[in-house]
Amino acid sequence: MSLIVQKFGGSSVADPEKIRRVAKRVGETADKGNKVVVVVSAMGDTTDDLIALAKKINIKLPAREMDMLLSTGEQQSIALLSMALLGMGYKAISLTGEQAGVQTDKVYGKAKITYITPTRLEEELAKGNIVIVAGFQGVDAQGDVHTLGRGGSDTSAVALAIGLNADYCEIYTDVDGVYTADPRVVPKAQKLSTISFDEMMEMASLGAGVLQPRSVEVAKRFNMPICVRSSFNYNEGTMVQEVKDMKNLENEITISGVACDNNVLKITVFEVPDYPGTAAQLFTVLGQEKVNVDMIVQSGDMLHATNISFTTGQEDKTNMESILQEATTKIGANGFMISDDIAKVSIVGAGMITNPGVAAKMFQVLADNNINIEMISTSEIKVSCVVKASEAKKAVLALHTAFKLDAE
Amino acid sequence: MSLIVQKFGGSSVADPEKIRRVAKRVGETADKGNKVVVVVSAMGDTTDDLIALAKKINIKLPAREMDMLLSTGEQQSIALLSMALLGMGYKAISLTGEQAGVQTDKVYGKAKITYITPTRLEEELAKGNIVIVAGFQGVDAQGDVHTLGRGGSDTSAVALAIGLNADYCEIYTDVDGVYTADPRVVPKAQKLSTISFDEMMEMASLGAGVLQPRSVEVAKRFNMPICVRSSFNYNEGTMVQEVKDMKNLENEITISGVACDNNVLKITVFEVPDYPGTAAQLFTVLGQEKVNVDMIVQSGDMLHATNISFTTGQEDKTNMESILQEATTKIGANGFMISDDIAKVSIVGAGMITNPGVAAKMFQVLADNNINIEMISTSEIKVSCVVKASEAKKAVLALHTAFKLDAE
Repeated sequence: MSLIVQKFGGSSVADPEKIRRVAKRVGETADKGNKVVVVVSAMGDTTDDLIALAKKINIKLPAREMDMLLSTGEQQSIALLSMALLGMGYKAISLTGEQAGVQTDKVYGKAKITYITPTRLEEELAKGNIVIVAGFQGVDAQGDVHTLGRGGSDTSAVALAIGLNADYCEIYTDVDGVYTADPRVVPKAQKLSTISFDEMMEMASLGAGVLQPRSVEVAKRFNMPICVRSSFNYNEGTMVQEVKDMKNLENEITISGVACDNNVLKITVFEVPDYPGTAAQLFTVLGQEKVNVDMIVQSGDMLHATNISFTTGQEDKTNMESILQEATTKIGANGFMISDDIAKVSIVGAGMITNPGVAAKMFQVLADNNINIEMISTSEIKVSCVVKASEAKKAVLALHTAFKLDAE
Repeated sequence: MSLIVQKFGGSSVADPEKIRRVAKRVGETADKGNKVVVVVSAMGDTTDDLIALAKKINIKLPAREMDMLLSTGEQQSIALLSMALLGMGYKAISLTGEQAGVQTDKVYGKAKITYITPTRLEEELAKGNIVIVAGFQGVDAQGDVHTLGRGGSDTSAVALAIGLNADYCEIYTDVDGVYTADPRVVPKAQKLSTISFDEMMEMASLGAGVLQPRSVEVAKRFNMPICVRSSFNYNEGTMVQEVKDMKNLENEITISGVACDNNVLKITVFEVPDYPGTAAQLFTVLGQEKVNVDMIVQSGDMLHATNISFTTGQEDKTNMESILQEATTKIGANGFMISDDIAKVSIVGAGMITNPGVAAKMFQVLADNNINIEMISTSEIKVSCVVKASEAKKAVLALHTAFKLDAE
């Protein structure tokens, strides 16, 4: 008998029929003698509908009240899923984030889980209940409701699995698992049977979109295996877990996948005066404005000035113009340019650091395909190149083939 | 400076525009230097919509999960009303029933409030906030959400007013206050400026529909004045409070109003064997089935048997047939008849008991108008007669005139 936490997203519980389908799936897991905790998101577009409603009342969307409002979406799904299970003859009970013991910090809209006190949850499991928990939410020490930010239900599920010492956490989604590349872009992409936490974290943050990067980070820290699988079929999914075998070191295929992120903004600041502290000043201003800077390249081809380029996510586009106006004036730079017509293509692989030729091979493949590299960044398990958006697909296909990831 | 609890029903907060209108009204009360706590119901048809959704999933509507589901309606309204007030520049905060310290018993669907612990509420008021509290809900000792049953928000408001030691509780509705009769039936009905708790309780339970009888009962026990007034205008409403003046004793007008309840079911059980205990047996069966019996009349015109007639609410109609089948067989009665074509017309007045002629006058007025009385019941402050439904309106008009309640 295992203790399994299963998470179903909003599209899986979008209407009564889908809720019953999820209930059937959950029931099957319980029928096998497992203890099951289910984490669900709000039904379909509920969250967006509530945001639209709130905007009609107060365009500023006050943070605390938004959390009070939005957390009702998950509360509705847990009640309905529990009713569906009861209707099928299972013992089931729904718990809000608060009742499930999900404690958060005091940040509204994107709270972090501080700890889990699963007393009630364990009691209900001991009574033989399937326990349905509202994802995306928790309460602070004062009892105020906080949401975890978009996609926070993945993190809820992983955190509950850890708090309960579950055997593993299943994340149900609309794809079969984690692929070597986006199957919509690369028809020959292959499903990975396992992937390490580190690789998954890179894949997630590089736009693979299957899991919330935060949830993988938490899973890694507490070594909680995650199984990503489809809610539409019974195919085996991908296990995200600590990979300890030495296969990668001896195998030519050292990379797990090719990721592509189109949500990139590239900014170049021209002729930044070249004396100590100016770059720091620039990034201090950006930091104060909560701009999340990713890659940075400095090109020093002038005598007393350099150009500095960096990337951020496109969500920062709205205020970027005014922020840069302020920053460039402050440091005495000669203007800036913002470009969103780019993409970041990355190869990810845990064995990469032991194969110094991998980065060189990536650059060579891109060069062979006449794809210009605008920026480069590397880490222990990935190499990322910024290319023109129009060339991203060609780059992904070429890299997928070159690194022998194509299915036969 | 007063501390006032204001309650707005679902139709008052049915859409963003109406929510803003309520916010304006609440803000005006705060502008006068008052501390304000606002209790709101779910928006418009939200509760009915959620019930319909649940029925698509599990027709049995499991009680605990229904409360989990339905309580989200009020949570949404409080967040939105709070946002509206914040948008107008007021300090405001929303609290769920739990956060406001509303503790209930463990009954789902129609819980009773056991006590109020207004610590958090008082803290927020002390910070200068207008506090918006979710009506219709509370939590039990284990932290499970319970709803108070239809119309429970009135009771929430009164209970919070008592817990906070408020000056009074305002219930906003779609009429100007409490009238001597339903103005839709009696055009000459007059608005009462004050009415006693006892009278209001009778009026409420006799179908006046302005206040929940339970809320009046609670208000009476703790002597909390309730002001019933319209959310659509600024007319003075009706104060429901302890009335101590002696006016009624010396005034010919001893009654406060004429009420009419069409939600009545009359049951006659024929030829009930006339030996001790049979009537008790009949009403024991009805009690076990949670049938709420109101008036009872026994007519003993046969040698060894009597007919027993009683009334209940029409909500009991569904199962009445099978319940009576069982009960009549058990006691050896000779069949039964169920009729819903009746109405209960009542005159209500605190001074009634000191005027023994009042009941006689009522029967005379009905007789003069050729209205047949099917059943009679009396209490210290009311006389009720069951008449044919088709004659109820005529009865109400005649009584209203005869007891000099008509406006000039």
